[in-house]
Amino acid sequence: MESVKFVSFIGSGNLAWHLAPALDNAGYIVKEVYSRNPHHAEILVERLYQAEVKASLDFSTSDSNVFIIATSDDAIQDIVREIVLPDEAVLIHTSGSQPLNVLQFAATPHLGVLYPLQTFSKLKKVDFREIPLFIESSDQKTEHAVMPLANAISNKVQKIGSEERKALHVAAVFASNFTNHMLAIADDILQQNNINFDWLIPLITETINKSIALGPEEAQTGPAKRGDLEVLDEHLEFLRKQKSVAAIYKLVSQHIIDKYNPD
Amino acid sequence: MESVKFVSFIGSGNLAWHLAPALDNAGYIVKEVYSRNPHHAEILVERLYQAEVKASLDFSTSDSNVFIIATSDDAIQDIVREIVLPDEAVLIHTSGSQPLNVLQFAATPHLGVLYPLQTFSKLKKVDFREIPLFIESSDQKTEHAVMPLANAISNKVQKIGSEERKALHVAAVFASNFTNHMLAIADDILQQNNINFDWLIPLITETINKSIALGPEEAQTGPAKRGDLEVLDEHLEFLRKQKSVAAIYKLVSQHIIDKYNPD
Repeated sequence: MESVKFVSFIGSGNLAWHLAPALDNAGYIVKEVYSRNPHHAEILVERLYQAEVKASLDFSTSDSNVFIIATSDDAIQDIVREIVLPDEAVLIHTSGSQPLNVLQFAATPHLGVLYPLQTFSKLKKVDFREIPLFIESSDQKTEHAVMPLANAISNKVQKIGSEERKALHVAAVFASNFTNHMLAIADDILQQNNINFDWLIPLITETINKSIALGPEEAQTGPAKRGDLEVLDEHLEFLRKQKSVAAIYKLVSQHIIDKYNPD
Repeated sequence: MESVKFVSFIGSGNLAWHLAPALDNAGYIVKEVYSRNPHHAEILVERLYQAEVKASLDFSTSDSNVFIIATSDDAIQDIVREIVLPDEAVLIHTSGSQPLNVLQFAATPHLGVLYPLQTFSKLKKVDFREIPLFIESSDQKTEHAVMPLANAISNKVQKIGSEERKALHVAAVFASNFTNHMLAIADDILQQNNINFDWLIPLITETINKSIALGPEEAQTGPAKRGDLEVLDEHLEFLRKQKSVAAIYKLVSQHIIDKYNPD
């Protein structure tokens, strides 16, 4: 007979906001949510079936088997120092950039990582089944706890080491955080000129569809790709009052020029 | 009785590759294609019903009413100087960054702009009906030629002045060329670590869907948005052997930090 699979969360940010309900809907029961800000824990608990707000990091009497740290990276080490766990607990973090051994001084030998390669915002629903989950485990017991949990919520589970996970995370910053910020800069430029952002939407969707279809190298277009220095100068002149935006324009354009027009 | 609407192209690059067939399929007839490289003109002509390669810029005996310059920006002025046109010809360019008056010394007073806000690569089919076309005209005759032509191929035709068009073009460089280049950098990082680019696809599509749904400012996530300086340092350490990529990482991250964590 399979035991009930109880899970506790440390952290209640954007990732926990989506991951905890996904587990709740996949045969797991989220029992406890701890957050430095108890109000944030309360709001997450309202999304869950049986969870309660946990006021401290003393989980010594917890029924959970798996404890998921879903905080910002810089909080992980403090949590590892403070957390008190029941016997045989499995402790995992969800960070792309932190190695498995950031957990090494925790009060359990069963350590793992579950890194979801996705961008999470509270207001935007995501389909967890399509999210790649990258798994690392210190030992077999951990792997036997983490793999079924990951497979219960996603169709795309993959084992990966800490160094490759960091490469994925750096790549994800460019592919997600920086692409989104390029759109934010475009939005700012249009707002300053009273032009609706919606005009850009067909361009943005085609850019991404093409980049995925042809690969980004083959898909590249634009004045920097063509080495059209006159246009680059005109654009920099247009941006002359926004020094930091102009600096980004210049650096990224130069990188494109160097990639496609080497000599 | 409506006269037959003949069009000639100067230039045979990525835009002409898609725009000329779109006109051919919308009640216009592309009669002539001129290109500095006649072989490129030949290849485009093969995609068209009745077009012929034009060997020179002397169109004095042409049957066309509308002449479309679809070259790189830096070629436009040379073409304006050299081109010979029939009486009452309408001459338009397709550049985002060039003002209408770059055409002012042409041998006709009927000057216009048709700027399609899209990224074009020969290998990727596009749906012209969904492409915003931004129109500018020197006079009524030109407008009466360019507006029907634009409306014949696109559902999204908009009149706009030269300065706003330049703002759109600069925004489009960020929204398209630079987002695609961020994906190219991500691809490079993954290739160096033998990780398949396909793992990023759910992240990329969700990033764009979310950015369009919430707006890019609300959609921003990542270590720079959170002000997580430890992760930024680790990523810069990871990129230490790729100085130009690290420089982009640093500059874009700083811009995100300044936008979301001002103090």
